Amino acid sequence: MEVPLNAETSRRSLLRSIGVAGGAGVLYSTMGAMGLAPVPTAEAAPYKPPSQSDFTLTGRGRKKVVVLGAGIAGLAAAYELGKAGYDCRILEAKNRPGGRNWTARGGTSETDLDGRTQRGRFSEGQYMNCGPGRLPQSHVTLDYCRELGVELEAFVNANADAYIYHDAAPALAGKPMRWRTAKADVYGYISELLAKATDQGALDAALSQADKDRLISFLQSFGAIKGKADGFKYTGSSRRGYSVEPGAAHERGTVLGPVPSLSDVLASGVGQRFSFEFGYDQAMMMFQPVGGMDAIPKALERAVGRHRITYEAWATGVANVPGGVEVSWKDRSGRERVERADFCVVATPPHIAARLRHNLGANVTSALKTPTPLAVGKIGLEYRRRWWEADDHMYGGVVPTDLDLATLWFPSTGYQGRRGTVIGYYHFGAQAETYGKLTPEERTKRAVDQGVKIFGERYRKELDTSFSVAWHRTPGFEGGWVGWPNQDGPEYKLLNEPQGNVYFSGDWLSHTIAWQHGAFTSARKVVTEIHQRVMAA
Amino acid sequence: MEVPLNAETSRRSLLRSIGVAGGAGVLYSTMGAMGLAPVPTAEAAPYKPPSQSDFTLTGRGRKKVVVLGAGIAGLAAAYELGKAGYDCRILEAKNRPGGRNWTARGGTSETDLDGRTQRGRFSEGQYMNCGPGRLPQSHVTLDYCRELGVELEAFVNANADAYIYHDAAPALAGKPMRWRTAKADVYGYISELLAKATDQGALDAALSQADKDRLISFLQSFGAIKGKADGFKYTGSSRRGYSVEPGAAHERGTVLGPVPSLSDVLASGVGQRFSFEFGYDQAMMMFQPVGGMDAIPKALERAVGRHRITYEAWATGVANVPGGVEVSWKDRSGRERVERADFCVVATPPHIAARLRHNLGANVTSALKTPTPLAVGKIGLEYRRRWWEADDHMYGGVVPTDLDLATLWFPSTGYQGRRGTVIGYYHFGAQAETYGKLTPEERTKRAVDQGVKIFGERYRKELDTSFSVAWHRTPGFEGGWVGWPNQDGPEYKLLNEPQGNVYFSGDWLSHTIAWQHGAFTSARKVVTEIHQRVMAA
Repeated sequence: MEVPLNAETSRRSLLRSIGVAGGAGVLYSTMGAMGLAPVPTAEAAPYKPPSQSDFTLTGRGRKKVVVLGAGIAGLAAAYELGKAGYDCRILEAKNRPGGRNWTARGGTSETDLDGRTQRGRFSEGQYMNCGPGRLPQSHVTLDYCRELGVELEAFVNANADAYIYHDAAPALAGKPMRWRTAKADVYGYISELLAKATDQGALDAALSQADKDRLISFLQSFGAIKGKADGFKYTGSSRRGYSVEPGAAHERGTVLGPVPSLSDVLASGVGQRFSFEFGYDQAMMMFQPVGGMDAIPKALERAVGRHRITYEAWATGVANVPGGVEVSWKDRSGRERVERADFCVVATPPHIAARLRHNLGANVTSALKTPTPLAVGKIGLEYRRRWWEADDHMYGGVVPTDLDLATLWFPSTGYQGRRGTVIGYYHFGAQAETYGKLTPEERTKRAVDQGVKIFGERYRKELDTSFSVAWHRTPGFEGGWVGWPNQDGPEYKLLNEPQGNVYFSGDWLSHTIAWQHGAFTSARKVVTEIHQRVMAA
Repeated sequence: MEVPLNAETSRRSLLRSIGVAGGAGVLYSTMGAMGLAPVPTAEAAPYKPPSQSDFTLTGRGRKKVVVLGAGIAGLAAAYELGKAGYDCRILEAKNRPGGRNWTARGGTSETDLDGRTQRGRFSEGQYMNCGPGRLPQSHVTLDYCRELGVELEAFVNANADAYIYHDAAPALAGKPMRWRTAKADVYGYISELLAKATDQGALDAALSQADKDRLISFLQSFGAIKGKADGFKYTGSSRRGYSVEPGAAHERGTVLGPVPSLSDVLASGVGQRFSFEFGYDQAMMMFQPVGGMDAIPKALERAVGRHRITYEAWATGVANVPGGVEVSWKDRSGRERVERADFCVVATPPHIAARLRHNLGANVTSALKTPTPLAVGKIGLEYRRRWWEADDHMYGGVVPTDLDLATLWFPSTGYQGRRGTVIGYYHFGAQAETYGKLTPEERTKRAVDQGVKIFGERYRKELDTSFSVAWHRTPGFEGGWVGWPNQDGPEYKLLNEPQGNVYFSGDWLSHTIAWQHGAFTSARKVVTEIHQRVMAA
């Protein structure tokens, strides 16, 4: 799961802190050669999967591993261990694989912690990704898609024709502005200002004459501003968009205008949205599996073997016992059962794992309770008509707002088809708490009332059906993802180490929390540790 | 066909001139309300297709129209006239529909004006779009795709993980830099400079205190710069990318570094590339038909009726005669033939039409010779392995260079498949002339030698097969597109008016030259004029 637009900065500062975002020691890093020589993309930590031959060549026996949770970390652990022939069994509380990688369709049914049951009524082919929805190019998730044959298509995380909507800004409030128009104006005005300051000598201490000439040349291209003779003025350009499209014969088109003042553009706050798409994890291109994000857990389930997974199996306890581990769990009829194995991988969220009966010590319970689960909400709205494409010529895209919707997503698939499903909000924290308290019907009504402010009555009239998720009110998860107060602290360290024969795994034990990449890399780490231990024994 | 990166500015200034790009009279346009109220995208000129009922209700007879050329303009004219039951016949010199909308595959064969025959040897499913390759969201081309059932997918026209390669820049030359890194550094440094100048009062004449506060707040987000206490310094950020990817447990990742100096960043010229993706026609999102751009002419051919098109039919003359028009043409056996009709639509390039025998007057010949055809070249390189995805984590994208390749395109389809076809150059003018003089084998060798500078030896070793087009040396076209010295001049005006019963149509008679949108809207204009004339008769 990724972070909503308006949360990026705070999550980054929470999760990554100085070391990554600006520390010189990190910046002047190991890669040398200016960092600009033909660079392979950063690779995840080197990883060599365990293999059958490790056993056949050494004569060692295959071990049994029980995995708690068929989310991405649990599935990936069983999948990787299975490459060497480990005997894995996954116990999963839900009736499906994937954990938070969950795609709702027609027929999906889910009952929340408040006892409200929703049934998905989406049309054939329509769906919403309730959890993760987008994949950056650098994540190992894409390598798993390649390995597992999961087909990919582009995810539209940035679109010049999508809107920015600020309802409460000091200027231009309540007027949806397209990203292209916002960028043209902000880049135009800052280019004008910097060109003027440079030309007037205000930066002579920092810039040589050659620097100044190059900078002004860049700014003229970057901002589409006038020349020195015209005071480097920004007066608009076709980059803003057209009100009448250029076309045949004498139709030159009519550029969208007039251009708002510099002061209004600054006060509108639209420029504050731009940095989202520069983020390492959020910059285009991004991708999604064709047909729904759950194509990944479905492929993992096939690769692991359906017979190795028991669904509707709630783990209740885990203990180190002589020679291995003992896991207790309840089956779907409520009967208490016990599973013995050599190792256990606990791949549930930490606050869920904290409730297991165990003999790992009070420090472990305390550590599992340390990270804070976050309230996260999403709603899928299926429309009878793809009005955003037909009327607005907007094919996919993310629309940030200052409404309690936070961000809206327009679909990156099924272009020009009959129907389409919009993510009507993707928010977290207080906004998600507020919506989470409402019934599903009330959530839809509130979300639509808000969306009508941006898109008009078609946002209400063309709606067919909806489905919403409040992750903090969803059994088995009780949060969208977690935040650690400190990933250098003893609790984080403790849970990244084996507790006897029990290992913990999940995105919450990584520096890419809320991304499947974190779950995959954490599973690789645990698999490597178990296998090394078995091989060394 | 679109314009290569490095040509955008010059083509725009050539084609659009002041009226669109900056004239205040145009900017303060008709759309009112600040241009920021819920804006529908600019629509093409309103268009109502002729319909069957126009004839049945008025008792008028359907007329016969002969169309010269089965490019987009000719096909669209026949398609639209066909909606009302006009009896259309298209004469097309090539053996396929589409004109410059041409997709080369395995088995494609083409002989150029120098007598060199190339045969496409691409694998099953691999192809190159020799002409147009990308569709902006605002163009009527997408409306035709919807109407004709042509399936769309995203075209990757901008990718943060694609490279910029400057071989001859005064700094950082010969070092491919990813777009994300280039943007992080340029935006970081200009934010630092502007924040300093603003804070020091250099712009107090232009900015109120509130403006200054908002501007500095924006620059801190936009440039990821430090605060006032640290002199607003740019020292890099994770936006540059990582040399070691963040991941499990204690792997925070290693940000790519070190950061080059401001002076080197300016001298590298990378910032000059950014404005490409702000262009109205080039900003993401962009799209392409699934399976090749020729899905559009194929769908038009089906809609028009295959029986209405005669291929390998070279028009040799057109004349107004009493009661209509007479077209002479040569069939595939070289036999001279004559076709009579009520109207003729000439939908060939202007310099090809100029060679027709006709009785339209010397002014028409002179006008047809006025626009200048441009040399344009493209090469498709099929690789056995998608190394740009597997090694570089670059999924699609445009790579601008200062080499004679101009720009390279990485494929926007078939992600993670076994093979992929790269556009190894897309250039025009002098570069296209140079490559056009070479044999196809020499072009491949030269293009690969250049590409190895950016991507290393895999660019040579993994290559399987290639196909190149030099539009200026291709029979029936003799140019990629045309440029008018002046679209306000009498020649342009003359050809946009009917000459007796003969009409001209094509992108070259529009303000979106080199785009299918220009051909479609020009066809609509001519169809409307013919139909109005018939209905008024």
